[in-house]
Amino acid sequence: MAKDFPTREENYAQWYNDLVIKADLAENSAVRGCMVIKPYGYAIWEKMQATLDKMFKDTGHVNAYFPLFIPKSFFSKEAAHVEGFAKECAVVTHYRLKNSPDGKGIVVDETAKLEEELIVRPTSETIIWDTYRNWIQSYRDLPILINQWANVVRWEMRTRLFLRTAEFLWQEGHTAHATREEAIEETEKILDVYALFAEKWMAMPVLKGVKSPNERFAGAVETYCIEALMQDGKALQAGTSHFLGQNFAKAFDVKFLSKENKLELVWATSWGVSTRLMGALIMAHSDDNGLVLPPKLAPIQVAIVPIYRNMEQLENISKVANDIKKKLEDKGISVKFDDRDTFKPGWKFAEYEFKGVPVRLAIGPRDLENKTIEVARRDTLEKEILQLEDIENKVEHLLEQIQENLYQKALSFRENNTQAVNTWEEFKDVIENKGGFVLAHWDGTAETEEKIKAETKATIRTIPFNTRMEEGKCIYSGKPSAQRVVFARAY
Amino acid sequence: MAKDFPTREENYAQWYNDLVIKADLAENSAVRGCMVIKPYGYAIWEKMQATLDKMFKDTGHVNAYFPLFIPKSFFSKEAAHVEGFAKECAVVTHYRLKNSPDGKGIVVDETAKLEEELIVRPTSETIIWDTYRNWIQSYRDLPILINQWANVVRWEMRTRLFLRTAEFLWQEGHTAHATREEAIEETEKILDVYALFAEKWMAMPVLKGVKSPNERFAGAVETYCIEALMQDGKALQAGTSHFLGQNFAKAFDVKFLSKENKLELVWATSWGVSTRLMGALIMAHSDDNGLVLPPKLAPIQVAIVPIYRNMEQLENISKVANDIKKKLEDKGISVKFDDRDTFKPGWKFAEYEFKGVPVRLAIGPRDLENKTIEVARRDTLEKEILQLEDIENKVEHLLEQIQENLYQKALSFRENNTQAVNTWEEFKDVIENKGGFVLAHWDGTAETEEKIKAETKATIRTIPFNTRMEEGKCIYSGKPSAQRVVFARAY
Repeated sequence: MAKDFPTREENYAQWYNDLVIKADLAENSAVRGCMVIKPYGYAIWEKMQATLDKMFKDTGHVNAYFPLFIPKSFFSKEAAHVEGFAKECAVVTHYRLKNSPDGKGIVVDETAKLEEELIVRPTSETIIWDTYRNWIQSYRDLPILINQWANVVRWEMRTRLFLRTAEFLWQEGHTAHATREEAIEETEKILDVYALFAEKWMAMPVLKGVKSPNERFAGAVETYCIEALMQDGKALQAGTSHFLGQNFAKAFDVKFLSKENKLELVWATSWGVSTRLMGALIMAHSDDNGLVLPPKLAPIQVAIVPIYRNMEQLENISKVANDIKKKLEDKGISVKFDDRDTFKPGWKFAEYEFKGVPVRLAIGPRDLENKTIEVARRDTLEKEILQLEDIENKVEHLLEQIQENLYQKALSFRENNTQAVNTWEEFKDVIENKGGFVLAHWDGTAETEEKIKAETKATIRTIPFNTRMEEGKCIYSGKPSAQRVVFARAY
Repeated sequence: MAKDFPTREENYAQWYNDLVIKADLAENSAVRGCMVIKPYGYAIWEKMQATLDKMFKDTGHVNAYFPLFIPKSFFSKEAAHVEGFAKECAVVTHYRLKNSPDGKGIVVDETAKLEEELIVRPTSETIIWDTYRNWIQSYRDLPILINQWANVVRWEMRTRLFLRTAEFLWQEGHTAHATREEAIEETEKILDVYALFAEKWMAMPVLKGVKSPNERFAGAVETYCIEALMQDGKALQAGTSHFLGQNFAKAFDVKFLSKENKLELVWATSWGVSTRLMGALIMAHSDDNGLVLPPKLAPIQVAIVPIYRNMEQLENISKVANDIKKKLEDKGISVKFDDRDTFKPGWKFAEYEFKGVPVRLAIGPRDLENKTIEVARRDTLEKEILQLEDIENKVEHLLEQIQENLYQKALSFRENNTQAVNTWEEFKDVIENKGGFVLAHWDGTAETEEKIKAETKATIRTIPFNTRMEEGKCIYSGKPSAQRVVFARAY
């Protein structure tokens, strides 16, 4: 277990990358831009998946599975969509290999060329709406509320573990509705699910709002988003929910007979979160000592380390430890009793600290005598000696406290790093020297947004909901503006 | 809900295909050979996944995720492996599309050609063993017990929904061990997990054994398998567990320092089951009235249909129905109370029968008066009127009975369709006219096996475990044989 990695202050990007690798979350694979998600990282993703899956089902959605490949011609059907994705598509052109004629290795069999190339899905709107055409005839067939857990590929040139990889895992919801209102309601409902998940499970506060036209999903009428702030003052888009209008219904000719017996185009939404959330989770809470995980998503919530000099001591400690383990597990808490004799207690303490295990318990011979136990919490690194009695309830309560504390800490950080600015000079200064969310007036044009981005690398992260309407003047153009929007540099 | 499909007798292949489509399990997609798994089918697959995932974890395995793409050069490293898969590989050659110069649609951007082609994984041994090389240095790093849930692609020319598709979903376990014995033990342990799952959850009896060299996985030293018998007398390989020896460790140079401080090659296993199990499940139990699902894998275990003439009756029935629903759900039983007024009871009965819902309850006004309920079981199509009292325990018990009955029925079928034959004439006759598992002596050579296959389309499904050793003469060559093996035509 290595801790030789830079602090956030020294080199934030390197700190993140080293943390991901050294905490055994993921690593780069032999395939450019593709990662291997290691068991410890995957266990966190599984917890995210299970939670989200239940939330989707509780809101009426079902899962299904659509093909990995999309015929190239499908892609061209929605103009904005293909424009957005064409430059990052992995393309399958052949379906067979053969032995090289020179006897050296294998080569692509040129006689096995596909008539039409297949795109490895970067997202599945096109193949799904082509399918929905056959599923939808009447208003009785609506709504369709389907989610898919899948891998997708976007050929990114600059990749970073979890945050931006050529292949990533995600869920993508694709729903079909009879009315505009119902589709918008769905888009908003999912945004609420995402925000709830981010705040209650990931302990990560998010801003809810919509994207500016420039930042919209390719093919969407409106993109709703949740935006989080990382510890380096950069924003991270954590989830998006798109109101697609009738764009895909038009492109794929999906119509239904309404109650009034009229043929109408179907309304659509799509929404997704991905393994990018892993990156957000890591960056939101971790510190210079390693990973910090919110209890609700930690694969191991409690580690118990015995401190002993001989086997007799270990045996006595094990009895107590296994009893505690059982009581905690009965409460649904995941516990690892680490009685390996190949590692010293100090090494184990460092290991669990580095891997972000929320609570670590230690028991030695003196604890047995005194009926006490040492309890260490990862978030604050505080330790205390507690009476053993009722320890399972104390630990359960502590886990709740840690969950809440992480959220409050992240919220304070965001509050301390959100700033309203009123002039262009001030804007540039804050973006460059302080970072964080910058609340500023904007004239509503794509042109201004692009110029601000070109000059400062800051983009509009969201036009936030639940914000005070306030007239003002665009920091860049001086033109009138009806509300402040949220700018930041972003991942 | 349509029932216009052939009986098994009339056209078994068509019966299967129609059933899959009309019961909303899956359908062919616009992409050749790739299927869409529809929500009802996917819900069954989710139950399979959840059960198997728990079984893997209970036996010490963890999940991880490896890249979708495999560099072509990796493929060549294990000779038998590449030989086995080269002819069915989807190959990615480019990573960008662009607007066609003639302004008509989009084309592959020829300037974005990959230096080395990427194969869409048909199975992941090569990319995983390339990764394991970096994870394994010492015996302390062993064993590695990893499973992956993923999609894979094998470019099949003739595809059938679930049974053989270009893309399919599966799990693939890849384990690494310090000794040959431990790897073989793992291979066998997983075979037992698969057999237990097939028999206890799918209610499908299986033969356990090993494959003949001809039928081995490409790159394996020994392939263990479970084989099931379908209602048309054809065999279906339901799962395989491979002892890979040191083949992949050699190909990817994966060595470890043993306890004795010697550098040794690592021992490997791999094992998988796929959405093919869906095909097996459907074919094992379904009948001419539609799908028959074992209760343990049915997405809806109990459907409740109200029979009423007016809203007042429906209200009264709903009270009772919702009470039953709650009591059943408290027992972990999934229940659908179908109070839609857009469909008549008769239509609903047919729907649940067709979709294989194990138990259907019906309540009408007279039942309310008499405190009774009609209980119909899908496996035998029997109905009876039961007293409402204690109905939740009666239904729970009935579900267990159905599960057991389906298994026993399939077991009887297999017993009635398993036959020992001693001559070549008899062999040909049984294979051609009766089907089923044929127990016959074989001389152990690949040559004979190939000739038998060429003449009869029958292959050796397995060299079974737990069989009586019995000397005899090969039905084809007349040469000596030490035990009978299991022949059949197969999916």
